[in-house]
Amino acid sequence: MTHYLDHAATTPMLPAALEAFVGTSGRVGNPSSLHTSGRAARKVVEESRERIGAAIGARPSEVVFTSGGTEADNLAVKGAWSAVRDSEPGRSRIVSSGIEHHAVLDPVEFLVEHDGARVSWLEPDRCGHIGVEDLRGVLAGSDDVALATVMWANNEVGTVQPVAELAAVAREHGVVFHTDAVQALGHLPVRFDDSGADLMTLSAHKVGGPVGVGALVARRDARLVPQLHGGGQERQVRSGTLDAAGIHAFAVALEHTVEHRDVEAKRVLALRDRLVEGALGLGLGITVSGCWHAGDAAGRLPGNAHLLVPGCEGDSLLYLLDAAGVECSTGSACQAGVPQPSHVLLAMGYSEAQARGALRLSLGHTSSDADVDAVLAALPGVVDRARRAGGVA
Amino acid sequence: MTHYLDHAATTPMLPAALEAFVGTSGRVGNPSSLHTSGRAARKVVEESRERIGAAIGARPSEVVFTSGGTEADNLAVKGAWSAVRDSEPGRSRIVSSGIEHHAVLDPVEFLVEHDGARVSWLEPDRCGHIGVEDLRGVLAGSDDVALATVMWANNEVGTVQPVAELAAVAREHGVVFHTDAVQALGHLPVRFDDSGADLMTLSAHKVGGPVGVGALVARRDARLVPQLHGGGQERQVRSGTLDAAGIHAFAVALEHTVEHRDVEAKRVLALRDRLVEGALGLGLGITVSGCWHAGDAAGRLPGNAHLLVPGCEGDSLLYLLDAAGVECSTGSACQAGVPQPSHVLLAMGYSEAQARGALRLSLGHTSSDADVDAVLAALPGVVDRARRAGGVA
Repeated sequence: MTHYLDHAATTPMLPAALEAFVGTSGRVGNPSSLHTSGRAARKVVEESRERIGAAIGARPSEVVFTSGGTEADNLAVKGAWSAVRDSEPGRSRIVSSGIEHHAVLDPVEFLVEHDGARVSWLEPDRCGHIGVEDLRGVLAGSDDVALATVMWANNEVGTVQPVAELAAVAREHGVVFHTDAVQALGHLPVRFDDSGADLMTLSAHKVGGPVGVGALVARRDARLVPQLHGGGQERQVRSGTLDAAGIHAFAVALEHTVEHRDVEAKRVLALRDRLVEGALGLGLGITVSGCWHAGDAAGRLPGNAHLLVPGCEGDSLLYLLDAAGVECSTGSACQAGVPQPSHVLLAMGYSEAQARGALRLSLGHTSSDADVDAVLAALPGVVDRARRAGGVA
Repeated sequence: MTHYLDHAATTPMLPAALEAFVGTSGRVGNPSSLHTSGRAARKVVEESRERIGAAIGARPSEVVFTSGGTEADNLAVKGAWSAVRDSEPGRSRIVSSGIEHHAVLDPVEFLVEHDGARVSWLEPDRCGHIGVEDLRGVLAGSDDVALATVMWANNEVGTVQPVAELAAVAREHGVVFHTDAVQALGHLPVRFDDSGADLMTLSAHKVGGPVGVGALVARRDARLVPQLHGGGQERQVRSGTLDAAGIHAFAVALEHTVEHRDVEAKRVLALRDRLVEGALGLGLGITVSGCWHAGDAAGRLPGNAHLLVPGCEGDSLLYLLDAAGVECSTGSACQAGVPQPSHVLLAMGYSEAQARGALRLSLGHTSSDADVDAVLAALPGVVDRARRAGGVA
């Protein structure tokens, strides 16, 4: 039996979402076509836009559909930075954090290398939190900032950032604020209106929808230079045939997730706490990254268990756990196979040696006590073998 | 009963493709994850890549998955132009045609407006064909060309371009050649290896696959500056979680389409010819755009019937036909609702008045004699009413 503990990488598609996909796929029609079939497809898209907006506290017109979180992050960072630069050439600085996903980091670095952007990095504390006063300090000290981008919750260690406070500081200084809410969306009460953000990234497949669909939520007054040019769909900001089936499935999945989120977060939190406390109690020297306290639903994503196993290579742990039927990750799935310690852990002050023994176990809607039991049963043998493989034990 | 004659906008998903989508969606796993589920998803992606490569005469490693044709066109135009500019700053010119899809035109215009690109437009003849000698003339007369991009077959009027000859001329001059093969793929023997192109755009939903999936086929030696930055998927050229389900469905649809393409093209051609000849014979003054001869499978896409109805607004025709159960288009679906005459028809030398009466009927795998009968039965009344609406009759 397989125990899937990698919900942060992708979570199983909800049956209702798949049903919505299949139903809409069975009807032909390009949502941009004007005939009856096209208008029916358009209706699916616009009703889905309304449902998604309602689920996250945004106006429907603020929801710009994309091919996923990566495209939404790229559009936010490059699109907003370019728009500000075009109108105010003196503002070329981006403020971001050292623990962003590569879908934010890499566009920032691209702008630095190719377009003359400057960047100030906010470093997290040992808990993985970004300080509001740090952002205030950077913004008070420089008049050239175009954009600040800080994720809502981290994909590796699960730390939740004070997004509303960060956004408020950015707004005080007239700086556009973007947040990648991909990991937060399924587990925290993510509300665009309350967040104060100008731009927010969503992904469907992290909340039980299909891969290949996401959205950038953008305030009506947010200026964005398009990154995909063409037919002019999505307020001329994002071109490409609208994926009515995928968007429909996204709306169904998100609505379901939001409806059950509070109850589900509590359930998952209890499982996560049992997993972490159990791992800590195994006498293997395992620690938790950042600042751990059981029951912490505000500072860390409820489904995130991020362990550090001294004397092990994370990849060894991953493969040995996999052989024992436990599927997890050493960090971001996108960086899997990249033989480098996590930039997130290094930014938090861990050494390369500590960072190499990282293990991310992420829980979600299919997680159960049996999954936790399986991890705790497997860990002693796995850690022992991983240490022998590494020549440590 | 609805008669769907808008296959160029999108064509119904093939049952086998939907089945592949559902099957893969039912198994969790991010193709970048290293555990068993992740590796299974990766296997689906890589086997699909092999099948797609085999279907179009490309090596698997040449297939770069994207979110669709628009993104592939953007990556080709902006990515290739930027790569050449970075290494050879003197080469900043793009050669393209006046009848490209907006997913090519708009990136070209973006580069001109924002990045200092220059552009030379190749104009089609009255038939809609781009001249090989015209390309040769431009390339012989300028040493600053970075990229030439000419579509394989036009989405509005269906003209097929001499891609292999154009690519050969570009190669003689050391110029990267891109072709958008989105419309051609389902109906013509599209072979990447034989085409001589460096870059070729594909879209799944035009061949019975899902919306939201496509590919840029790129020779191994093609240099591309990434347009979506992040996790580094797809040879570091295109980041974003790989959509295993959509890619699997794309492969199944394309394989099926290619297998049946010759037989199907003949069948559709016969229907198209009967439709066009029938429309010409109605005594309504209808003409065909470009150079018409029945049985023409080389110069025009077999499923394309592009009619010009004098004294009518295309939108009136479209809505009246829709009311009669016939679904079609006035041109590109992406431009539907844009109250401008087609840039393709204007480039071919038609007047604005002529271009306004355009009607695109595009046939595909579900088309039947009943569809043709329905169009021919509806046209006299529809044209009469459209002319009255326009105050012409």
